[in-house]
Amino acid sequence: MKALVFGADGFEDVELIYPYHRLKEEGITTYVASIQKGPIKGEHGYQIEADIAFKDVDPADYDILVIAGGRGPEKMRLNNHSLEIAKYFFKENKPVAAICHGPQVLVSAGVIKGRKATCWPGIRDDIIAAGAHYEDKEVVIDGNFVSSRSPADLHAFGREMIKLLK
Amino acid sequence: MKALVFGADGFEDVELIYPYHRLKEEGITTYVASIQKGPIKGEHGYQIEADIAFKDVDPADYDILVIAGGRGPEKMRLNNHSLEIAKYFFKENKPVAAICHGPQVLVSAGVIKGRKATCWPGIRDDIIAAGAHYEDKEVVIDGNFVSSRSPADLHAFGREMIKLLK
Repeated sequence: MKALVFGADGFEDVELIYPYHRLKEEGITTYVASIQKGPIKGEHGYQIEADIAFKDVDPADYDILVIAGGRGPEKMRLNNHSLEIAKYFFKENKPVAAICHGPQVLVSAGVIKGRKATCWPGIRDDIIAAGAHYEDKEVVIDGNFVSSRSPADLHAFGREMIKLLK
Repeated sequence: MKALVFGADGFEDVELIYPYHRLKEEGITTYVASIQKGPIKGEHGYQIEADIAFKDVDPADYDILVIAGGRGPEKMRLNNHSLEIAKYFFKENKPVAAICHGPQVLVSAGVIKGRKATCWPGIRDDIIAAGAHYEDKEVVIDGNFVSSRSPADLHAFGREMIKLLK
């Protein structure tokens, strides 16, 4: 089983590091994808390696997409390849887990309309405007799509993310 | 089931936050203990709440002790109550998981002699001097005691920490 985690400079550190190690804990081979291959830096200073550029990802190779928050999603959503990957996962009804600002990518990919979702409160009005059914809960589950609000929700986010794969 | 996580100012952020949420993910009530109750700050700037002071902990109430690394353990090991808690867990053969600089507390508590363990490389010589059988592995398992080296090992640390409770 293979997982793809979206990150970009300014990612919210624990929102990427928690699901990354949590997936590895399950024995899932986990790749970080970004604008380009190489080091990316979180807003709290953690540096991690992006294994692959968005443009080189074949989404059919992966069983789950995870989108970390922070300032990264505002960069990811400007990259057309990242949006195509997100569209593929929603079209194929494959598991997607997004936290905090992660749903910004889903707004730009046009895939959140009609879906139950949560996010960082500061972008709540944007996902509502994009047609999502917003709920203020630690984790919102809508079929193969789970979302959470912030680092404080990571236990619930991790639990439901792993359930999507079982 | 209840878990106790040791933290103090300068804690390595993800070494505390990962096990904290990982335990909560399993439905385990998780408390952070420190020199005193109240906010503590990690070396990457995350602020979390310590729920209880070491002096107020009755270790019999908890099923596992987790010790995060960073600069926190050099403060914890100067607090006699923290050492008494660690001694109790080892004496009763209850689960203990320590990562990175966490084993510094176990050196000061005098409980690591004859035990297989790993730690941050920079304190390797200290745990060897204290009588530990050091191994350079992502996770070392010695009965009810597991240890890891650094944040890069969190997936293995989390996996074995949870296994101690099953």
